[in-house]
Amino acid sequence: MNEFEMIKEIFAPLSEGAPGAFGLTDDAALVTVPTGCELVVTKDALVAGVHFLPDDPPDLIARKALRVNLSDLAAKGAAPIGYVLALALPTECDRNWLETFASGFDADQREFNISLYGGDTVSTPGPLTLSITAFGSVVAGQMVHRSDAQPGDLLFVTGTIGDAGLGLKRQKEKSKQARSQEASFLIDRYLLPRPRTQLAPELFNLATAACDVSDGLTADAGHIAAASGVGIEIDAVRVPLSQAARAAQADLVELITCGDDYEVLFTANPSLAGAIARWSEQISLQITKVGRVVAGSGVRVLDSSGNMIQVPHAGYAHSVG
Amino acid sequence: MNEFEMIKEIFAPLSEGAPGAFGLTDDAALVTVPTGCELVVTKDALVAGVHFLPDDPPDLIARKALRVNLSDLAAKGAAPIGYVLALALPTECDRNWLETFASGFDADQREFNISLYGGDTVSTPGPLTLSITAFGSVVAGQMVHRSDAQPGDLLFVTGTIGDAGLGLKRQKEKSKQARSQEASFLIDRYLLPRPRTQLAPELFNLATAACDVSDGLTADAGHIAAASGVGIEIDAVRVPLSQAARAAQADLVELITCGDDYEVLFTANPSLAGAIARWSEQISLQITKVGRVVAGSGVRVLDSSGNMIQVPHAGYAHSVG
Repeated sequence: MNEFEMIKEIFAPLSEGAPGAFGLTDDAALVTVPTGCELVVTKDALVAGVHFLPDDPPDLIARKALRVNLSDLAAKGAAPIGYVLALALPTECDRNWLETFASGFDADQREFNISLYGGDTVSTPGPLTLSITAFGSVVAGQMVHRSDAQPGDLLFVTGTIGDAGLGLKRQKEKSKQARSQEASFLIDRYLLPRPRTQLAPELFNLATAACDVSDGLTADAGHIAAASGVGIEIDAVRVPLSQAARAAQADLVELITCGDDYEVLFTANPSLAGAIARWSEQISLQITKVGRVVAGSGVRVLDSSGNMIQVPHAGYAHSVG
Repeated sequence: MNEFEMIKEIFAPLSEGAPGAFGLTDDAALVTVPTGCELVVTKDALVAGVHFLPDDPPDLIARKALRVNLSDLAAKGAAPIGYVLALALPTECDRNWLETFASGFDADQREFNISLYGGDTVSTPGPLTLSITAFGSVVAGQMVHRSDAQPGDLLFVTGTIGDAGLGLKRQKEKSKQARSQEASFLIDRYLLPRPRTQLAPELFNLATAACDVSDGLTADAGHIAAASGVGIEIDAVRVPLSQAARAAQADLVELITCGDDYEVLFTANPSLAGAIARWSEQISLQITKVGRVVAGSGVRVLDSSGNMIQVPHAGYAHSVG
């Protein structure tokens, strides 16, 4: 299958919901933003062996690559529109692999009501590499930034923390025999992030600042703190853990630094705590108060006596050079 | 240098011209389209060893990656706005390499009046891989498509054809000693495409269909033919060649199939030939009539007697699977 056959047979069907994609038969696409809205753009790249395991199921690789981008949009309060995909393919990715890969996009396009707008497929002698640019829209002026947290705000996070990191460890253990229910839950959380798209429509009305948790709870809290020029305190005992994470008896420091959670972390004025609880109930999404914004800088994790817990690696940073 | 230092020190300065990039300190960017305009999006990926030579100068790698995208925008009649960059870096790309790489973007941002809006940097055990998504704007309804060529239209191309392909051959020869002026010209054409941005403002008024020449003159003519449901005839003797290409006495079939030209190929109503000549003069860009659109399908290259020349490989297609 050459490049043109691949585009026509594998990827063009994914563009059918987007008139501006022109069936992937043009050099470029037209992306339309609803009147009164602004375009929000995010880009995440994933490399086999770095961000996913090379033998992860191809449909889940596709869905994860898409979802980590949708998670960024959700954390900005943006409604997803669509995406463009760059794919550097090693020769071992044959037609069967590609069809399964595309089926993952197809499933998520239906779930999130988005389409493929275009992209580029190239061959590589290296590992499978994906780069997705995702587009979303917000009402003009209503993108939620990292930089507007205020001392006195409370800190909230959606879902549970640390599951994906534990899931990656379980997945690497490779033993495919009779996995416990807990292990299956954790591995699923690693393979298939849940972008909190349902949170987005109200996020601007509730939050002062937000980002998604990809580098780890403390590292991403650090991003908000740095961008806002404030300090953040996290109460260790409040960090929401799944039953499976509790059963695993993992070290809390590991859970709040392992990353890949793809939850939304946000700050909010205390007067909105009730509204946040009601929105949480309305969208059936757990939202937990985990700390507060203070004057100063940096992130401190406190135990139940208010003493600081040492967090040696505040998240995952790809080091180069 | 870790990921965050790299973003702050190397890439954030490239975002200074774009308020919507928020200094690369947020999860996403806001891209603003002028009132009455639409957003045009294109994406091209490049892999070391496939699309450029690993020891090509890093600033020229950056500029080429950006320019192949700007070339797509130019062929759609779009004015460039900015871009997002995904970069998969092997460990040998150190700070010095990155600074030179970024200086290439800086130079081209000034030349084309655009900014970096965001992106993602990841590490890879494989070859250097870049993916750029570029944004442009067109007056609403004025994007030039591949699909609207009409029988009776003439076929035009900017610049000269085949130089980059010959330049790649010269570059691979590696002998750095005393290159002829011709070889230097050809290598420069391979390393540094000239996106025909200056053509864009009038393209909608002049052309019925257009695309950029990246796969090769005949292959890209084939894309217009297929998208428009027409045939295209190219007169071999009219294909514009540089002095250096003539001096190289290369086979014409090689020149029209080697690709990487990044010229604009477009079809136009014959009544506009005069207007095209005037626009060519006004923007100091050679535009040559190379053929015509006919009823039927496919691309035929004709010699001066009107006989068909066999073109075995109609351009470059990355084959997988």
